[in-house]
Amino acid sequence: MNAADRAVLDDFHALSALGATEAGGVERQAATEADRQTREWLVDWLTTRGFTTTVDRIGNLFGLREWTPGAPFVLVGSHLDSQPRGGRYDGAYGVLAAAHAVQRVHERFASSGETPPFNAAVVNWFNEEGSRFKPSMMGSAVYTGKMPLEEALAVTDLDGVSVEEALARIGFLGEQDGPRAAFAAEIHIEQGRVLDKEGIQIGLVESNWAAHKYQISVVGAQSHTGSTVMADRQDALLGAARVIVAVRELVDRFPDTPLHTSAGQLFVHPNSPVVVAREAELHLDLRSESLEVLQEADAILNREFAAIEASTNVKIVKKSAHFWPVNPYQPEGVELAREAAEALGLSHRPMLTLAGHDSTNLKDIVPTVMLFVPSVEGISHNEHEFTHDEDICAGVNLLTEVVARLCRGDLRS
Amino acid sequence: MNAADRAVLDDFHALSALGATEAGGVERQAATEADRQTREWLVDWLTTRGFTTTVDRIGNLFGLREWTPGAPFVLVGSHLDSQPRGGRYDGAYGVLAAAHAVQRVHERFASSGETPPFNAAVVNWFNEEGSRFKPSMMGSAVYTGKMPLEEALAVTDLDGVSVEEALARIGFLGEQDGPRAAFAAEIHIEQGRVLDKEGIQIGLVESNWAAHKYQISVVGAQSHTGSTVMADRQDALLGAARVIVAVRELVDRFPDTPLHTSAGQLFVHPNSPVVVAREAELHLDLRSESLEVLQEADAILNREFAAIEASTNVKIVKKSAHFWPVNPYQPEGVELAREAAEALGLSHRPMLTLAGHDSTNLKDIVPTVMLFVPSVEGISHNEHEFTHDEDICAGVNLLTEVVARLCRGDLRS
Repeated sequence: MNAADRAVLDDFHALSALGATEAGGVERQAATEADRQTREWLVDWLTTRGFTTTVDRIGNLFGLREWTPGAPFVLVGSHLDSQPRGGRYDGAYGVLAAAHAVQRVHERFASSGETPPFNAAVVNWFNEEGSRFKPSMMGSAVYTGKMPLEEALAVTDLDGVSVEEALARIGFLGEQDGPRAAFAAEIHIEQGRVLDKEGIQIGLVESNWAAHKYQISVVGAQSHTGSTVMADRQDALLGAARVIVAVRELVDRFPDTPLHTSAGQLFVHPNSPVVVAREAELHLDLRSESLEVLQEADAILNREFAAIEASTNVKIVKKSAHFWPVNPYQPEGVELAREAAEALGLSHRPMLTLAGHDSTNLKDIVPTVMLFVPSVEGISHNEHEFTHDEDICAGVNLLTEVVARLCRGDLRS
Repeated sequence: MNAADRAVLDDFHALSALGATEAGGVERQAATEADRQTREWLVDWLTTRGFTTTVDRIGNLFGLREWTPGAPFVLVGSHLDSQPRGGRYDGAYGVLAAAHAVQRVHERFASSGETPPFNAAVVNWFNEEGSRFKPSMMGSAVYTGKMPLEEALAVTDLDGVSVEEALARIGFLGEQDGPRAAFAAEIHIEQGRVLDKEGIQIGLVESNWAAHKYQISVVGAQSHTGSTVMADRQDALLGAARVIVAVRELVDRFPDTPLHTSAGQLFVHPNSPVVVAREAELHLDLRSESLEVLQEADAILNREFAAIEASTNVKIVKKSAHFWPVNPYQPEGVELAREAAEALGLSHRPMLTLAGHDSTNLKDIVPTVMLFVPSVEGISHNEHEFTHDEDICAGVNLLTEVVARLCRGDLRS
């Protein structure tokens, strides 16, 4: 193992100790104390090496390398925040890889004397996970103009703390805009088992799956679990349970095209053991590579909602919805990454991403490269998430090559 | 309307203003600030009229009338605590009715010069509702020796506050035992629609329904809602949803004997929108007048659990369980109440109680009388709970007559 690889692994080890959980994961939800510690660690890493750091109005943290004053930037990054009891790799690996890649590119340009036409910035995007503050991918959504800044700052967590307050408390509420982007790149663990199963080192992401996420409220009436006769009940939790089962059963209707469905978050009111619930708020998440399948699933689900309303004597109210269409990454970026992988002798294959990433937002404003490294057994959003050191290092090597080519202007039209 | 009736209604109006909600209910969960206010109101009411008040080690509040020093007491009461967004009548009516009944009996004895063989006490039993601290009927369970004091004091709410701390904070953690019981009586709204539908004024409760309440934990594995392939998921929330549906469907298997089932409380971990849940904790509640039906329902449910474990790739772990058999109130107490109702010209019928009450505990140590007044449309554990003033007053009149008879020793064997 060379010194550069060892430095990556040592840094990853140090980073993983921040917000570490007993079972080997991390818990660093957005704008918490653990998130602050991780950010301070990154600021320290960057400033020690001569990067200029800056924070924008939504808490995105940038480490700038400006070789050509005034030129736009290649934004290279991911996110340091995690799910509750999340894994060490998800997001944090991408930020650390970005830091090492940009630093290596800087050293390469310094030793060759070359002045590239584009600058580079390491980025830690704010609140990619969306567990404390909804929706997910918030920092990159505000940066790319998809979500208004004021709306994002006003989002509150379950304790009523707003994004603005939380960022101010940890000292990462900036007062300026981030740097202007020319291109973007992100590397991430796959969070699936395709690469692991096939023994391939790199996934070249061509497109995201389409996703439809929405919040519903099942409205019933509060009553006594013992004395209220069954026929009189309007049980919001029973309605929600039937929705959860219906959402799962959608999957079996599409045997030929993968459809992923889930309900991950449920709030019950009043949630007392002897009270039939008056309301249940549920977050639904449907994803497919086929827009047609997703639309058909939505239509079936709406019919199921009507049936559940009738059978359970509840009302199902749709609150908010976020829809992501199937949207390709720029093919020229995929090709640039493929050539870079070839040059380094890394095995690779084209892939789709089932999960959303900050790059999903970035690609809608600038040409963006998205790379995957393998996840052992595809385990993700779990403390047992694992990627082999060899794959960690190979990913940083490839990202370095991709960033160098983007900074040199290989994608300039 | 006579002055005594008017005093009851005026007091009920004053009491209903404490912890009042906008929609006309109350929220006074056990040992909260609103519970403290209500208790202070009762202490003031009692001491103004010359009662001696005392608080026992689990926060049960007693107002004593001791006519025969050293004789045991007729305990007359219910509970002032409420569900979240509960109704005004549930519990509070029974405590107020007890206060008026014992006071009227006191005045009756004072004017007749009679010295009854038994004393009387108004009681506000601690934490009947069980919404903040589980289980329900805690104060009467400790008083009757069914639950160890230390175990009850150590129970914590969702914020980690113990019963002992919460009672100390509101100034109602006593240092002595409650008075010794000879008999008990309680009046409560029916929380069902039998009396309302039949136009009958009084329910004479002969027995409780059997109930089986238990806590289960559905254990899965945390993963990513987007990228984890469906076959790999161990979705604890999906498992819980299937349990909730199975619990409801039990009811339809017993068309001839009412079975009431519910799941009122569910906690999901980590409860993040993009994470497949690793654990779901669920509180189940099955009740029937038939022990056989309840046992058969339990057996079916256990088979359903096994099927859900297999279909959903989760584990279902039973945590704690409380079982109440069908257990009659003493028939001589029912007969005493029937004669009292006849004497007052009130229409009445024998009934079962589907809900648990403090008297369900008391009847296991002393002969106990349980009375119901009508609930309009049977609405309960709901801010729209309602009982007509006329029924409120008739209930107090009957309770007064019952307490007088119990104090006079009519049930002495």
